[in-house]
Amino acid sequence: MRIAIAQINPVVGDLKGNAQKIADFISKAKKFDSDVVVFPELCLCGYPPEDLLLKEHFVKDNIKVLKSLAKKVVGLTAIIGFVDYDKRKRLFNAAAVIENKKIKGVYHKHQLPNYGVFDEKRYFCEGKNGKCFSINGNIVGINICEDIWIDKGIFQEQVKKGAKILFNISSSPYNVGKLLSRESLITKRAQQTKRMIVYVNMVGGQDELVFDGGSLVVDKDGKIFARGKEFEEDLLVVDIPLESKEKQKKCSLPLRINKRGQRLERIYKALVLGVRDYIQKNGFKKVVIGLSGGIDSAVVAAVAVASLGKENVVGVSMPTRFSSQGTKTDAKKIAENMGIEFKEIHIEGIFKTYTDVLAGEFEGLASNIAEENIQARIRGNILMALSNKFGWLVLTTGNKSEYAVGYCTLYGDMSGGFAVIKDVPKTRVYELAEYINSRQESEAIPKSVIERPPTAELRENQKDQDSLPSYDLLDQILTQYVEEHKSLKVMGKKFSKDVVMDIIKKVDLNEYKRRQAPPGIKITPRAFGKDWRLPITNKYKEF
Amino acid sequence: MRIAIAQINPVVGDLKGNAQKIADFISKAKKFDSDVVVFPELCLCGYPPEDLLLKEHFVKDNIKVLKSLAKKVVGLTAIIGFVDYDKRKRLFNAAAVIENKKIKGVYHKHQLPNYGVFDEKRYFCEGKNGKCFSINGNIVGINICEDIWIDKGIFQEQVKKGAKILFNISSSPYNVGKLLSRESLITKRAQQTKRMIVYVNMVGGQDELVFDGGSLVVDKDGKIFARGKEFEEDLLVVDIPLESKEKQKKCSLPLRINKRGQRLERIYKALVLGVRDYIQKNGFKKVVIGLSGGIDSAVVAAVAVASLGKENVVGVSMPTRFSSQGTKTDAKKIAENMGIEFKEIHIEGIFKTYTDVLAGEFEGLASNIAEENIQARIRGNILMALSNKFGWLVLTTGNKSEYAVGYCTLYGDMSGGFAVIKDVPKTRVYELAEYINSRQESEAIPKSVIERPPTAELRENQKDQDSLPSYDLLDQILTQYVEEHKSLKVMGKKFSKDVVMDIIKKVDLNEYKRRQAPPGIKITPRAFGKDWRLPITNKYKEF
Repeated sequence: MRIAIAQINPVVGDLKGNAQKIADFISKAKKFDSDVVVFPELCLCGYPPEDLLLKEHFVKDNIKVLKSLAKKVVGLTAIIGFVDYDKRKRLFNAAAVIENKKIKGVYHKHQLPNYGVFDEKRYFCEGKNGKCFSINGNIVGINICEDIWIDKGIFQEQVKKGAKILFNISSSPYNVGKLLSRESLITKRAQQTKRMIVYVNMVGGQDELVFDGGSLVVDKDGKIFARGKEFEEDLLVVDIPLESKEKQKKCSLPLRINKRGQRLERIYKALVLGVRDYIQKNGFKKVVIGLSGGIDSAVVAAVAVASLGKENVVGVSMPTRFSSQGTKTDAKKIAENMGIEFKEIHIEGIFKTYTDVLAGEFEGLASNIAEENIQARIRGNILMALSNKFGWLVLTTGNKSEYAVGYCTLYGDMSGGFAVIKDVPKTRVYELAEYINSRQESEAIPKSVIERPPTAELRENQKDQDSLPSYDLLDQILTQYVEEHKSLKVMGKKFSKDVVMDIIKKVDLNEYKRRQAPPGIKITPRAFGKDWRLPITNKYKEF
Repeated sequence: MRIAIAQINPVVGDLKGNAQKIADFISKAKKFDSDVVVFPELCLCGYPPEDLLLKEHFVKDNIKVLKSLAKKVVGLTAIIGFVDYDKRKRLFNAAAVIENKKIKGVYHKHQLPNYGVFDEKRYFCEGKNGKCFSINGNIVGINICEDIWIDKGIFQEQVKKGAKILFNISSSPYNVGKLLSRESLITKRAQQTKRMIVYVNMVGGQDELVFDGGSLVVDKDGKIFARGKEFEEDLLVVDIPLESKEKQKKCSLPLRINKRGQRLERIYKALVLGVRDYIQKNGFKKVVIGLSGGIDSAVVAAVAVASLGKENVVGVSMPTRFSSQGTKTDAKKIAENMGIEFKEIHIEGIFKTYTDVLAGEFEGLASNIAEENIQARIRGNILMALSNKFGWLVLTTGNKSEYAVGYCTLYGDMSGGFAVIKDVPKTRVYELAEYINSRQESEAIPKSVIERPPTAELRENQKDQDSLPSYDLLDQILTQYVEEHKSLKVMGKKFSKDVVMDIIKKVDLNEYKRRQAPPGIKITPRAFGKDWRLPITNKYKEF
């Protein structure tokens, strides 16, 4: 049986556009003489549709589109993810099996994830039937994403009912390590069930999530039979050996096992795809970035250039009296290296008018965080003014370590539409900088940028490490506290208890800032976004 | 049987503080010679604890606190909401029945709400047992919040098992109309089961939620037997007539049915309590508000004064060349009427330095939204500088109509820690202003403020209605679109289709702004907060 795995990049809500894309992939699959073409979970409406699902007309429109799409399915079987509903208006995360212009059957997802970034129990009811379907005389079991992650899942029942192949249609978002855990799971399931598994994953960026593709076919011994591309659309066509008689195919296929990317390469590609899709799916073309001459904005600029092309990236340096010659020169150098438009806008004069206007109010008080933040907020205002005037989207440059401990200015450097490295810890930002340089012949990010001790340059001789432990230590503690919810008791065994306590306090206190942060791309198992729902008002102290 | 209903205001996460408060209320209940004292849902940890529940040490600490609290329960029975867990580390939203220093039994909530602002299935497992308990020889059924909202709920089983009274412990957040629907539900359940129902609700503000109290005792005919205060802590002690023999009580009680507040009064009290608790529970004392001379900031100032006292509210007027004499005078008048500190900080000079610095970039381009937003963002920067310097929290003044259609400036007038009237539509802001004036002998909010056509004063002769339909029409459409998820098709029958389409477009397009808005107090059935989870990237267009 020839199976075409359509690893597509839909847009949430764009029912007509997604249907057109699905129709295009069906045509392509037919050109390859495929017997079956299989699409990802909820691909018709995009994933996750969130509260669009609470609009009854949205769900009805999705059914309308599915029905008119069905009319285009001739000569092969299509498996398409959509939203189903019943007479009681209960919703189901569903897969339609379409043949000969007709919806032949529908499977409803059994296991609804409601943890991490997932809220499926907010919308969907659990499916009850474990239907198998006959395709070209072969019994197949179809299930959806989470269904195959649960040990005693519906797939076992499907095998008992005679399924020769298992299809799993997914929209599984990327984070570091996810691809490997996914592959090892699918392998295990194949070995358990002695069945071939066809796993199709979505690809593309949707707000804070990036779906990484990497669709997979694993044979019944658990050997990888085919793998789709990562971070791009793909049509992966494979011939599955079955006992039943097969008709002769018009064209033969090469065996396709795309190579898996390395860890840093994958992070980089996730960021590049996440930025591109956020910008383009929201109707923007160009972005503007505040270039401080530091490593964060340099990495963000490099990612933006890779996403959108250098002609669509503008870098702006906004020095004050506290900016060193080194950072000013580096900001310009970064722009030159990357070939992007560069502006230098001096904000010292604006800063001075603020301090003049506030002189009466602040009389007799020492300069402190108030004056520092004024500068950061002037920069935010300038970038937003450029954004408003020219229609460019502001990319913010804060990293995860800063967001965690609040080492960033609300409405200042946190201003912008999309926070590219929001989920990238500072130590990993350094790794990314080296990786980015290793991808090109010349150094995109100057060595001086990588080697300079990190500084916000909001006061004389300021260094990040005046207020924070070394990023190496900070990131280790943050990983345990933020991503693993470890306790002070546990962390205190490995690290200085005082340092840990100080960091916990900073993380907890700065929830209000994160609540007003722009969305950014999730790359870790727990990002500051939909999978981090801590109260702002929170007096918990471990004891 | 004498029952004390402890309608308390706990703080999320403050396990020790909440335990102390519970102990204090137990003492008070004993002074009234009560047989039972009953506390709200999850009162030990506060509600909703959100992802604190993912920290294993938090859950364990909550158990520790419950156990040491149990040692203080002597001479009466206490029913206390807490987080339970089992050997498999599954969590339950639970009620402990404590007698004689011992936890005599535990009930696990059956129905876990996972809609609107609720995410209980993210954390908890459903309880399976429907245990009844014997208190002073009387069989009682205990259930938790949602358990009594579902038609075929566990309360029916409890009645079958012989429960003579039903206790429902709740943390049910306020919105307009909620109290009445709650009372009519409890009444209905009493009539259905022919049982007296003791309903205890939490009180207090927690981020965007306000719990309104109004605890209730309904007799078995559905008649209201007692009602607690709204929007404040209360210990409501009642004698429930039972067939069993009762011991003589030391003190007798007056029958207590607190009067229900009127609709506007309740909205006002919700805002006052919401502000007070957000400010105080987060460790602030004073707030600062940008006073434009318009109605929104006037209402916010009045609420803040009622919440925190006039000595803790600072009003700041920040005029530019576009500010009329009328609004400047009114800003000052409002501050005078309310007796709050007033500052006038002229930002025209700062605005000019921005336009000078950007003159090169903007050369040849007409002044537009970019210049307007610069002014709003200067104001945001000034307020935040005062906040940073003096430790005052900035209250923002945007209303729901503005947040809905994006008629507000991100990092400008949207800057601040708490958005008091974020969920109050503009037409209701007017009603609130009249109501506020009716509460005092002199007019807090000058008539000229109420009568002036709304204007943002960011350009010459600007009026809100240059860009928006009348607020009366706008709010009607927004109620249907935002709160009821109505379709264009349905709304188009009542209103001009073009107007509706334009508003839908504005609401959808401005999701990115709302995502970065401060939290604010929910007063409608669907606020822009936890119960509004629309994607930013969203190409849905109804067809």
